[in-house]
Amino acid sequence: MSSKSTVSISVIRRLPRYYRFLGELKREGINRISSRELSERMGLTASQIRQDLNCFGGFGQQGYGYNVVSLHEEIAHILGLDLHHNAVLIGVGNLGKAVATLDFEHSGFHLCGAFDHAPGVVGSSLVGMTVLHTDTLEAFCETHRPTTALLCVPRTAADALSKRLILCGVKAFLNFSHYDIALHNDDVIVENVHLMDSLMTLGYRMNEKRKMD
Amino acid sequence: MSSKSTVSISVIRRLPRYYRFLGELKREGINRISSRELSERMGLTASQIRQDLNCFGGFGQQGYGYNVVSLHEEIAHILGLDLHHNAVLIGVGNLGKAVATLDFEHSGFHLCGAFDHAPGVVGSSLVGMTVLHTDTLEAFCETHRPTTALLCVPRTAADALSKRLILCGVKAFLNFSHYDIALHNDDVIVENVHLMDSLMTLGYRMNEKRKMD
Repeated sequence: MSSKSTVSISVIRRLPRYYRFLGELKREGINRISSRELSERMGLTASQIRQDLNCFGGFGQQGYGYNVVSLHEEIAHILGLDLHHNAVLIGVGNLGKAVATLDFEHSGFHLCGAFDHAPGVVGSSLVGMTVLHTDTLEAFCETHRPTTALLCVPRTAADALSKRLILCGVKAFLNFSHYDIALHNDDVIVENVHLMDSLMTLGYRMNEKRKMD
Repeated sequence: MSSKSTVSISVIRRLPRYYRFLGELKREGINRISSRELSERMGLTASQIRQDLNCFGGFGQQGYGYNVVSLHEEIAHILGLDLHHNAVLIGVGNLGKAVATLDFEHSGFHLCGAFDHAPGVVGSSLVGMTVLHTDTLEAFCETHRPTTALLCVPRTAADALSKRLILCGVKAFLNFSHYDIALHNDDVIVENVHLMDSLMTLGYRMNEKRKMD
């Protein structure tokens, strides 16, 4: 099933959630689900679900519902979870250590190296790898050709490191720093995870709710 | 300046970013900026910026631009960064430790307690606090009345813990687990930070880009 090229980013961002819910249904031994039932589980409307899935060519049959196993597989395929983009972790502080334990193999990535510059961190062990010094980044990339970097460094270090990584052939970033990589580099793909922004948004929503109550 | 009650969530999610960029301009000693200049800095269109800020009653004057200091302050006020919602951190693994070092005081929150159940973690020191056992959560909440929880526990623990927290009066969650708190509790506010979803979205975008290149 081929995807249309103009799928909006908000639909794409919902796909991992569909994937997760379908995985649960699968584990529960449920083989078939209607868009109405799925909507109740996921807290979306049935029409939203039909619209979202139609973006990828339409699954399911009227009056029959969705086949859980095949929809789960199709979404895995759409997301490219069967691929293995080589990724490097940059910055092995607490956040970097948490990121290192993500389930890369089921996300379409392969974590092939981890880098830091702090004595005591360099040389330590992390998910079966030895943390390397950032000085050796270029040599490592020459050999392993990572296309993705998981950037877990402070904002002040992110500018120089992201430039070096791009020169090394990195084309995509999971960016936890508040440095705006995409703004300075047109050609790279950046997913930002900004914890401070999420916290501020939560505060805003709490204040708004209090005004309405 | 009063905010309209129907500001869309996507506008709200952009506010912390405006706040950050305006903070930078302030530090650089820039007093005034046009929506065009701001748009170049932020990688948004000038019309998007004008539309976004108009949601909150409109700032700036035609032909004059925005006053950086006062717009920065207004956005801080809109976001409620001058407030101090009491927050507890639940789960002091690597992710919890990273979350503990966020700049709460400038985000509208006050971190008043941290909880875990693992021996060796309970009793340890974290950003000036002693990590408490989750068994003491109810007693602690009775005294400190936190309204917010930063949930850094695995999915399997999130269901029971979020229910306990809600019974303790917690009304808002920064949720890192893949458990869907909002789905099971209508009345709470949840900001989800799902690292796996961000990783999968990144992979999808990489694959799409490769198809087009």
